[in-house]
Amino acid sequence: MQGTVEDVDVPSASDVLRRCRELVRPALVDAVGRLHPWTGEMAAYSLGWSDTAGTPEPGGSEGKGVRQALALLGAEAVGADAACAVPGAVAVELVHTFSLLHDDVMDADALRRRRPAVWKAYGTGPAVLAGDALLARAVTGLAETPGHHAAAVRRLCDALNDLVAGQAEDLRFEHRPWDGPGAVGPEEYRSMAEGKTGALLGCALALGAVLGGAPEPTVAALDRAGRHLGLAFQAVDDILGIWGDPATTGKPVHADLHRGKKTHPVLAALAGGSRAARELGTLLASARPTDAAAERVASLVEEAGGRAATRGEARRHLDAARDALRATPLTRTAARELDVLFAGLADRVM
Amino acid sequence: MQGTVEDVDVPSASDVLRRCRELVRPALVDAVGRLHPWTGEMAAYSLGWSDTAGTPEPGGSEGKGVRQALALLGAEAVGADAACAVPGAVAVELVHTFSLLHDDVMDADALRRRRPAVWKAYGTGPAVLAGDALLARAVTGLAETPGHHAAAVRRLCDALNDLVAGQAEDLRFEHRPWDGPGAVGPEEYRSMAEGKTGALLGCALALGAVLGGAPEPTVAALDRAGRHLGLAFQAVDDILGIWGDPATTGKPVHADLHRGKKTHPVLAALAGGSRAARELGTLLASARPTDAAAERVASLVEEAGGRAATRGEARRHLDAARDALRATPLTRTAARELDVLFAGLADRVM
Repeated sequence: MQGTVEDVDVPSASDVLRRCRELVRPALVDAVGRLHPWTGEMAAYSLGWSDTAGTPEPGGSEGKGVRQALALLGAEAVGADAACAVPGAVAVELVHTFSLLHDDVMDADALRRRRPAVWKAYGTGPAVLAGDALLARAVTGLAETPGHHAAAVRRLCDALNDLVAGQAEDLRFEHRPWDGPGAVGPEEYRSMAEGKTGALLGCALALGAVLGGAPEPTVAALDRAGRHLGLAFQAVDDILGIWGDPATTGKPVHADLHRGKKTHPVLAALAGGSRAARELGTLLASARPTDAAAERVASLVEEAGGRAATRGEARRHLDAARDALRATPLTRTAARELDVLFAGLADRVM
Repeated sequence: MQGTVEDVDVPSASDVLRRCRELVRPALVDAVGRLHPWTGEMAAYSLGWSDTAGTPEPGGSEGKGVRQALALLGAEAVGADAACAVPGAVAVELVHTFSLLHDDVMDADALRRRRPAVWKAYGTGPAVLAGDALLARAVTGLAETPGHHAAAVRRLCDALNDLVAGQAEDLRFEHRPWDGPGAVGPEEYRSMAEGKTGALLGCALALGAVLGGAPEPTVAALDRAGRHLGLAFQAVDDILGIWGDPATTGKPVHADLHRGKKTHPVLAALAGGSRAARELGTLLASARPTDAAAERVASLVEEAGGRAATRGEARRHLDAARDALRATPLTRTAARELDVLFAGLADRVM
C-alpha cells in the first residue's frame, strides 16, 4: 500500500501519529482538566489515560489519535505551523470521544479498546453526561480560539450534525429488512457511512486548513479527502466487524452480525445474486444469527464476494482521498505524511 | 406577588409567553425540520407538538417556553427588535429540550409533562441520539447567525458547560450522605442549582441582549438576573418535587425523596437542628424511603421548617433577580414584562 511513497526519509504512519499526539497532548489534558472532575475522570478513562479508579495507565488503551493528526497535518499542508491547529485537533478528538461514549450506549457495545465501555464501567447516565460534557467542551474550546474561529466553529457544527445524522441512519438501518423494497441501498449506506465516519475526518483536515488560513477551495478539497478516507475507514471497520480478531479489534467476534448491522460486506454479498447470496438471504431473513449461524453467515458473505467487494470499496475511496490531496496545492512534507497516514489506516485489512 | 406592577395595561405572564412562542415558532419549526427525520420526530414529541406516532397534538404538552421568551425580552429590553433574538431563542429552547431528554435518561424519570419521557417512548439510545442532535442543531443555528455570533456562541457554550457541570453535581450529590462531614453544604447546593437551572436562564436573557447589540455590563446584569431567577425556579421545583400535585407537575409524588435527591427543603430542614430535624436525619440515614416513609419524610421536612426556608430562598433570589433588572438601564415595556414573567414563575408555590 505504500508503493507510491519511495523516499526513505518519510516517517512511518505511527511516527506521524506519535509526533502529533505529543504536540496536542498538553492542550488536550488542559481541556479535560476544565471538565467537572467526575466527567473529567470518565473522559480520562475513555481516552485511555487512566483506569476506572482514576489511576494513570500510561500508553494503556490510548487511541491512535488519527483525527488530531489530520488537523495538524491539515495546517502544515497549507504552509501553517501545526501549533495553530491545536485547538482544532483538541476539538475533533473530544468530539470523537463524545461519539464513542454515546455510540457505545446506543449500540449496547460493552467493550471498547479491550476495556469495558464507559457506560459499562460507570453506568449509562454518567456515560451520557460525560459525552455531553466532552461535546460542550469541544465547541467551547474552538469558540474561544482567537482568529478564524467563526468559520472553524461552523465547520465543526456541520460535522456534528452529519455525525449525528449518520448515527441515526445506522440505528434505523438495523430495523430495515435485508431484502426487498425496504432494503438499504448502496447510496443510503454510503450516506450513512460518510456522516458517521467521514464527516469528522473531513472536518479534522478542513479545520487544520481553516485555522492555518487556507482559502476555501483548499479547505473544501481537504474536507473531501477526509470524507473519502472515512468511507475507506468504515469499509475496513465493516470487514473487521465480521472477520477481525477480537484480540486486535478489542470487540467480540461477529458483533455486527449478531446485531443485524447493515454493513457493506453483507449488503454487497446479497446484491451479488449467486447461490451463496440466496442462501445468505434466507439465513438472514429467518432470525438474528446465533454463534454457529454467525459463523455460517460470515462464510457465505465471503463466498458471495462481500469481503472482496468491501476491500475494493475501501481501496476506491482511499484512492479518491489521495487523488483529492494530489489535486490540491499542498506543502510537500505534509502531503507525504498524509499519504503515509492514509495508506497506513487502510493497511489494516489489505 | 404581582404587587409591584400596578398598571392595568401590562399583559399577564401567559400573554407574554404566548406572544414570544408565536414569534419564535416558525424558526423553531425550521430548526427541528433540519434534523434527521427520526431525531426530528423525537424532538417534535419532546416539544409537545406531536404524539409518538408523529400525529400533531396542538397545544397538548407544549412547554411554556420561558427560555425563548427571556431571549426575546432580553433584546427588547436593550431597545432592539425581538426578531434579532430569534436565533438565540431557538438555541436556548433546543438546549433546554436536549437537557430534558438526557436528564430524564440520567434520572430514570419515566414521565415528563404527563407523558412518557422520550427514553420511555422511543428507547434510551434513541433519546440520547435525539438529545445530541438537538444540541448540535442549537449551536449550529447560532453559529450561522450573521452579526454578533462569536460572542453569542461563546455565551451559549459557557452556559452548556455550566449546565452539564450542574447536572454532574446533582447526580454526585445522590451518593453523598445526608449528614456528617460528607454532607452537601448550602454553597455546594447553590452552585449545583445555578449550573443546572440558572445558567441557561441567564444565557437566554444575555443572548437576547448580545444579539440586540447591548454593551457588556448590560449583558452581564441580565445574565445575573437570569441566574437568580434560575435559583428561585429550582427552589420552587424542589418544593413541587416533594409537595407538588402529580396532576399539575406531571411527575410521580415524592419522586425526589425516593431517589435521595439532595433538594433544598430537605437540606434546610436537616440544618435546623430541631427534634423533627433529628428524626428526619435518622429516617433518611436508614434507607431510601418507601411510599409510607416518604409521606413521613415530607411531614418532617415541613415540620422542621424546610418548606418555609425554601420558599424564603425562592423569594430572596426572585428579589435579587428583579433588583438586577431594576439596576440596569432597560426599556420600560420590556422591563415590565420581565417583571411580570419573573413573578409569574415563582407564583406557582407562593
